[in-house]
Amino acid sequence: MATEAPAKDTERYFEEIDVGETYTVERQRTITEADVVNFAGISGDFHPYHMSTEVVKDTPFDGRIAHGVLVFAIAEALVADMNPRSFTYGHEGLRYPTPTLIGDTLTVHREVVEKAEYNDEYGKVVYEYVAENQDDETVFVCKQHITLVETRD
Amino acid sequence: MATEAPAKDTERYFEEIDVGETYTVERQRTITEADVVNFAGISGDFHPYHMSTEVVKDTPFDGRIAHGVLVFAIAEALVADMNPRSFTYGHEGLRYPTPTLIGDTLTVHREVVEKAEYNDEYGKVVYEYVAENQDDETVFVCKQHITLVETRD
Amino acid sequence: MATEAPAKDTERYFEEIDVGETYTVERQRTITEADVVNFAGISGDFHPYHMSTEVVKDTPFDGRIAHGVLVFAIAEALVADMNPRSFTYGHEGLRYPTPTLIGDTLTVHREVVEKAEYNDEYGKVVYEYVAENQDDETVFVCKQHITLVETRD
Amino acid sequence: MATEAPAKDTERYFEEIDVGETYTVERQRTITEADVVNFAGISGDFHPYHMSTEVVKDTPFDGRIAHGVLVFAIAEALVADMNPRSFTYGHEGLRYPTPTLIGDTLTVHREVVEKAEYNDEYGKVVYEYVAENQDDETVFVCKQHITLVETRD
Amino acid sequence: MATEAPAKDTERYFEEIDVGETYTVERQRTITEADVVNFAGISGDFHPYHMSTEVVKDTPFDGRIAHGVLVFAIAEALVADMNPRSFTYGHEGLRYPTPTLIGDTLTVHREVVEKAEYNDEYGKVVYEYVAENQDDETVFVCKQHITLVETRD
Amino acid sequence: MATEAPAKDTERYFEEIDVGETYTVERQRTITEADVVNFAGISGDFHPYHMSTEVVKDTPFDGRIAHGVLVFAIAEALVADMNPRSFTYGHEGLRYPTPTLIGDTLTVHREVVEKAEYNDEYGKVVYEYVAENQDDETVFVCKQHITLVETRD
Repeated sequence: MATEAPAKDTERYFEEIDVGETYTVERQRTITEADVVNFAGISGDFHPYHMSTEVVKDTPFDGRIAHGVLVFAIAEALVADMNPRSFTYGHEGLRYPTPTLIGDTLTVHREVVEKAEYNDEYGKVVYEYVAENQDDETVFVCKQHITLVETRD
Repeated sequence: MATEAPAKDTERYFEEIDVGETYTVERQRTITEADVVNFAGISGDFHPYHMSTEVVKDTPFDGRIAHGVLVFAIAEALVADMNPRSFTYGHEGLRYPTPTLIGDTLTVHREVVEKAEYNDEYGKVVYEYVAENQDDETVFVCKQHITLVETRD
Repeated sequence: MATEAPAKDTERYFEEIDVGETYTVERQRTITEADVVNFAGISGDFHPYHMSTEVVKDTPFDGRIAHGVLVFAIAEALVADMNPRSFTYGHEGLRYPTPTLIGDTLTVHREVVEKAEYNDEYGKVVYEYVAENQDDETVFVCKQHITLVETRD
Repeated sequence: MATEAPAKDTERYFEEIDVGETYTVERQRTITEADVVNFAGISGDFHPYHMSTEVVKDTPFDGRIAHGVLVFAIAEALVADMNPRSFTYGHEGLRYPTPTLIGDTLTVHREVVEKAEYNDEYGKVVYEYVAENQDDETVFVCKQHITLVETRD
Repeated sequence: MATEAPAKDTERYFEEIDVGETYTVERQRTITEADVVNFAGISGDFHPYHMSTEVVKDTPFDGRIAHGVLVFAIAEALVADMNPRSFTYGHEGLRYPTPTLIGDTLTVHREVVEKAEYNDEYGKVVYEYVAENQDDETVFVCKQHITLVETRD
Repeated sequence: MATEAPAKDTERYFEEIDVGETYTVERQRTITEADVVNFAGISGDFHPYHMSTEVVKDTPFDGRIAHGVLVFAIAEALVADMNPRSFTYGHEGLRYPTPTLIGDTLTVHREVVEKAEYNDEYGKVVYEYVAENQDDETVFVCKQHITLVETRD
């Protein structure tokens, strides 16, 4: 049975997390031109689809599009469980089905999709993230954010 | 047989890209405190492992660690093929086997690991990225950067 | 009787908040050189006490000091109650008893110090913030963060 | 009698500063989306009233509003007396009577409202700051910027 | 006879570079408000022609204009030959014939205009840069980017 | 006879500016790693001499060096006369005799080196800038910052 997760930074053991648990932030953050320019500057990715209003006129896009990894970074930071007993093992299944345009606002949903034993100290907890824009189009999916979480015993 | 790829921004059709083709940038960019602080500010992820010299004293890390997604963003921008006839479909198999510390310098390697038909207009080209620090430790792997590249015919 | 506050973004009415309620984040964020440089760039305050390692040699400080308003901004963001039923009315009693040096790490404490009727729609809730560095020196005090919070009735 | 203050960075003793002295910068700086995004990233305050064009549609505001502390930081940097013989003791009476919207341009006025003896080395000089937008609405007041200024004797 | 230069980061000796060689990036980067705000913050130049939408209403400009040095920095980074065997000696003849407005997109052209002996180890190679906006107006010229390039022998 | 210039933002006509007039800011701003990282992000120039601690080990430099254009931008903003009756016509004679390392602190000197008639409305005023580091080594020279200044008559 699906339940609402506690606040993002709640300290929890592996045993206290349930498959089906959900967490959602609604219409929380608009991807701005400043975000795209700043992310280009950090990553070093100045592709004209992100940086040139002239070049995108020759594309099907309605304007410059955000870097996929920027959408990933913001979506994950909005909903990732900042449980201090857990850390990231890896990510699987990143997809960007619709481009995120400058001005789009993200709603992001998190769900625990898998739990498994890992070793004596840690269990594996897998989250799925889905981000939608203000028109309910899915702009980003991370099928598996694989984390390792301390076990109580 | 492996071959060296042309410059990053070379325009190429699907047919001109070969499995085994490689591209490497060596010791190109040091992950700085400013990168970590700026990335926290863009993503909104202010986890104390990235932001607090005091909290990391209670961890096995030798200092604050870079966000995994920051390492991903920088590594990909350093080597990704900016071929204007291609775009990103998705990513698979992101792993962060060793934490990247502030002051680490990235060497990144790209290799074409798979080609496949996709549809009439595009073929699928899959790249693998591996990033190492100055001590030859692997800090980041992206097993599959899946791209779609225009076919000539 | 003092109680621990719920998570920062919990939606609450005026009636649900009690005088004496507390919230603390410990050793959460280190003030870095990048923070000081970035804040100078946003505010436009390039005073050499923040920006010049040479000028501070002629002062009693052990290095460049952070802008007081930067410490205020970070301390407040770390602990301020982001209750969506409340908004800021004003601040009183900002003091900076010890300079914050680059490299200092903030622990910040929040406490509800006053509640009062305001008008038909809102009640007044006053928070006090105290920030300490890693040596338990008080670096910032805001005696009154005055907020207005929706009443239930 | 009110007088115009000298340039911002003029070196002066306590004795050379007069109650009533004024300094004004007119229509000097527009608060941009980049300022708000950058300040969110430095402070860590990503409240949707600053960051989400969708959430503000449910508010009486005509768009995202700037952080109060950002307006404080910019207004103070525009007019604060950068007299090298003075330093900040504290602030009193911060108020934000009208929200500052992205696109608003600040005019800021400074006035010396109080002088008092403090100790053998320093005298107390208190400044008031008032910031208005392009429609002559007061968006920020700091009733007292309390500084200590070296005495000549 | 003019020839197209190889990719920007190609390692070449002085002997391999020819007068008349050209390199062009077309409509590659739009100068954004975020660029102007960020550059003001780095340089410390907050002149109201860059920062105030109100002040520019009293000028012949159609909006805030970018800092000339920002246009120089971006134009040079877009086309400068990042040959690891070369370094910058100096610049001559910087001109800004038309202001660059926020929203303008740069096309930049590079040409080798002079080669000369310098000393036993290095030869002098001089590049000219010309940047145009989307209306084919010249916004920036650098008549001479003087570089020293290693000789083969 | 040389004279000290008035404050940077003083409004003056062409006739009020004299050849030989000087203005100096001493040890005012330290070039930090954050400045170099931020400038790389704005300009797009990620050359490893600025960005890689490993690559500079193979050079004669004692660490990463600042971009020449960054030193130009900061030096000019520190001393340029922000006289609202003047604007930039061009620059001549930029030289970078000694690399600026991260951690160097700039002292910058401005001098009026030439005045000339230009047209009915404007006169030409030429400034020279010289920047030194904390060891009195000249790190940047701009032989001519050519400005046009309104004439009174």
